Amino acid sequence: MAWFRNLSKFSAINVSHQTQTRNRSAHPFLSSSFDFASRRFISSVNHPTEEKPSVEESSKNRIQYPGLGPTKPHEKPRVVVLGSGWAGCRLMKGLDPKIYDIVCVSPRNHMVFTPLLASTCVGTLEFRSVAEPITSIQPAISREPGSFFFLANCIGIHADKHMVHCEAVTDGYKHLDTWRYTVSYDKLVIALGAQPTTFGIQGVKEHAIFLREVHHAQQIRRKLLHNLMMSDLPGVTEEEKQRLLHCVVVGGGPTGVEFSGELSDFIMRDVRQRYAHVKDYIHVTLIEANEILSTFDDRLRRYATKQLTKSGVRLVRGIVKDVQAEKVILSDDTEVPYGLLVWSTGVGPSPLIQSLNLPKSHGGRIGVDDWLRVPVVQDVFSIGDCSGFVESTGKPTLPALAQVAERQGKYLANLLNRIGKAGGGHANSAKDIELGEPFVYQHLGSMASVGSYKALVDLRQSKEEKGISMAGFVSWFIWRSAYLTRVVSWRNRFYVAINWATTLVFGRDISKI
Amino acid sequence: MAWFRNLSKFSAINVSHQTQTRNRSAHPFLSSSFDFASRRFISSVNHPTEEKPSVEESSKNRIQYPGLGPTKPHEKPRVVVLGSGWAGCRLMKGLDPKIYDIVCVSPRNHMVFTPLLASTCVGTLEFRSVAEPITSIQPAISREPGSFFFLANCIGIHADKHMVHCEAVTDGYKHLDTWRYTVSYDKLVIALGAQPTTFGIQGVKEHAIFLREVHHAQQIRRKLLHNLMMSDLPGVTEEEKQRLLHCVVVGGGPTGVEFSGELSDFIMRDVRQRYAHVKDYIHVTLIEANEILSTFDDRLRRYATKQLTKSGVRLVRGIVKDVQAEKVILSDDTEVPYGLLVWSTGVGPSPLIQSLNLPKSHGGRIGVDDWLRVPVVQDVFSIGDCSGFVESTGKPTLPALAQVAERQGKYLANLLNRIGKAGGGHANSAKDIELGEPFVYQHLGSMASVGSYKALVDLRQSKEEKGISMAGFVSWFIWRSAYLTRVVSWRNRFYVAINWATTLVFGRDISKI
Repeated sequence: MAWFRNLSKFSAINVSHQTQTRNRSAHPFLSSSFDFASRRFISSVNHPTEEKPSVEESSKNRIQYPGLGPTKPHEKPRVVVLGSGWAGCRLMKGLDPKIYDIVCVSPRNHMVFTPLLASTCVGTLEFRSVAEPITSIQPAISREPGSFFFLANCIGIHADKHMVHCEAVTDGYKHLDTWRYTVSYDKLVIALGAQPTTFGIQGVKEHAIFLREVHHAQQIRRKLLHNLMMSDLPGVTEEEKQRLLHCVVVGGGPTGVEFSGELSDFIMRDVRQRYAHVKDYIHVTLIEANEILSTFDDRLRRYATKQLTKSGVRLVRGIVKDVQAEKVILSDDTEVPYGLLVWSTGVGPSPLIQSLNLPKSHGGRIGVDDWLRVPVVQDVFSIGDCSGFVESTGKPTLPALAQVAERQGKYLANLLNRIGKAGGGHANSAKDIELGEPFVYQHLGSMASVGSYKALVDLRQSKEEKGISMAGFVSWFIWRSAYLTRVVSWRNRFYVAINWATTLVFGRDISKI
Repeated sequence: MAWFRNLSKFSAINVSHQTQTRNRSAHPFLSSSFDFASRRFISSVNHPTEEKPSVEESSKNRIQYPGLGPTKPHEKPRVVVLGSGWAGCRLMKGLDPKIYDIVCVSPRNHMVFTPLLASTCVGTLEFRSVAEPITSIQPAISREPGSFFFLANCIGIHADKHMVHCEAVTDGYKHLDTWRYTVSYDKLVIALGAQPTTFGIQGVKEHAIFLREVHHAQQIRRKLLHNLMMSDLPGVTEEEKQRLLHCVVVGGGPTGVEFSGELSDFIMRDVRQRYAHVKDYIHVTLIEANEILSTFDDRLRRYATKQLTKSGVRLVRGIVKDVQAEKVILSDDTEVPYGLLVWSTGVGPSPLIQSLNLPKSHGGRIGVDDWLRVPVVQDVFSIGDCSGFVESTGKPTLPALAQVAERQGKYLANLLNRIGKAGGGHANSAKDIELGEPFVYQHLGSMASVGSYKALVDLRQSKEEKGISMAGFVSWFIWRSAYLTRVVSWRNRFYVAINWATTLVFGRDISKI
């Protein structure tokens, strides 16, 4: 603080130097379980590691920090959660901070309420309303001295050493060096989710936008509004206007259908009024190789098809074989020019998940047993889209749905709390503890909105079974109410309700910020 | 639409082909006053222009479009407004769309409610709440066939030809070629605002963030939250933590003071709770070469100094001589390390304003007469931060304040409506029209919040005159109420009130999206 003492202040009032009087020993970084680096840079080359983590490392410019060491027997055991999606967040919410220290490693500090993400692209909801900070979900993470949120990517797991390798997300700020460190765990929960599948089609990653994160929704919104304004510039030809304002959605699952529905609502209500010059040029096309909403009842599917078509969405059955900067090429060589391309054809395992040397389930997911434990290794669990039952359980791989992830997170939080209470919280100490009931998934049903205040609700447990399935305004009301009650915090529940009310009264906001 | 006819639809329901049946002749781009380019690209080289516009042009890769030609005598005259700040937006709001077609040329499609921008950086208000779409301010722009909003920068003015040169903002999208076009005007209003001054100090543009646009506030917020998370990573030294969490504000005017106040509120209330690990490391320093809030009463200034210091803001009198990536160097060679640097030392004319071959006022602004007309040329007006009275008026240059810009916009809208009604709307036809009262500025007073529910209100017309000046909670209440009533739309007024209420109840949102 030498620089500060040198400064001449013009305020006569004394500033209390909190940093100089605070109790340093209380700081977690100085506690015994923390392998602390006293210099800013430990060395300019990597520390030698005895074993290589599963993902390739060692660029000479990178600096490795020691990180969080193993917990001592008298300390709280540490649960390390990789990921901050539905599964990881529901788990953290349920973990008892009196039993465990919780460390979350994720490249984003919030959970995204994915079922409502499509609504944010067109301004029905605000981006902030669908994002929930992790420290609101589990306040102990910011309060407990041994609990942390690390903005970082996991780059490897050493299951035999009970240790994960992390790399900080520096977000392009030049003043932060990319650094790596390790975090030791007593229990590890892999909840890293999945990534969009491109089926190896050229150009998808370069030209299409996915719809999985808030920044995807922001990008879609910016591009949509930008194209609306560009199409109104002098000198733009008819053909170019058609292209700029052609929104193509690939994939007819719930996300693709809901986004198409929201987009057509936006066009019908807001574009016609606010972009009167170009309103007749904007169109939405939904391309699907098979049938839309294939998991839903036939009757509901027909209803959705009718509703979408009525509100101007063109439904096209086709297989995309190539994606170029301004057009999509179908397998029959049809060229589909577009201004905005949204890709939502389902998800698959990420390269990290593929690279991990752990048992796998069908489809390359991390294999788990009936209690969501990863077999062979100790103290490792996996939940959500990145995990699936190993073949020996005889159970099918569960669909990549928020409700599966959430149910697994809740189950595992209870299981870990029980283990911790029984004294099995620390590494390699849970062998003789009774695990109780295995995880059983009961499907509660599916919902999807199709725009124009209409939705589908299918409450059957599977496609073959009997049960309630309905479509229309009442379903839409159920859809909204159900999601509103699922929104995690009261703050966001309040904001989602307010956003919906404002959209109804004032229309959608169109400022491109 | 050949690509579409080739597609095999799987929906049995017929799609109504609106684009093919719509009345093409009604489209504004095909009207007589529009010089329409039927091919997508007119040519691969620039069209020769008889005279060069004031800003250098002609890169061979750029394509020039003809644009909007002069209006015909039987058509509505066209007012072209350059800029979408307080001045331009207030003008457009007041212009009568029955008299004029309105064309706005601006690189952003919304107005920013600048006095509340500082509050958005820390999440007290949402970004969307302080942005107002231009088509909400003047709906005729999207509805009238001859009115337009062009997302473009003005790159030159041909006053003798009644024409402006524009360049589309392509926003980095590769599929859009940067193109240029011209727009003819009957009346031109230059309301391009000003840009932040750096006093030629090295490194300001590279390392500091200004606080003038929504994207600046977004950048500040992202960096602040990012630094909070980075400082909690394992292996970060004490010194590095101090630096990362040191927020330095340069400039003690209302913006700098309000931002410092908001930041200290955020630290006192939200950081302590949500970032308990690093709360003692975060500090705010406000650097000002002279006195803070120099336009305010001495008593109010002392009050502000006391309040800011009490809430932990360090007030430093110093002159910045150099800005580096992680530290600021003062004129006495003191080094001030920072993690976030906000620069708000006032504004000056932009390069475009400087380059225009028009009469100038004191400080390089565009000179105007008592009726806000630019002398020498016909039908050109200028309002807001980019304009000042020419010397012959004997009037001083008005301060760069929202209230000056707004008052000028309102005055000029009335003046132009009067001219239009009297038949002087078209180019070169207003010579004999009575202009009425000249523009007179009456200062209503100044306000600034200083954090902790305290504000200053100075209702004196100038620093020397007598009048009401007060500070404290009542002032803060007046400050909030006054701004709330000034927010343009009911939608945003509602959102600002809701945001304030939510912040009070739930605290500020900290998700980094």
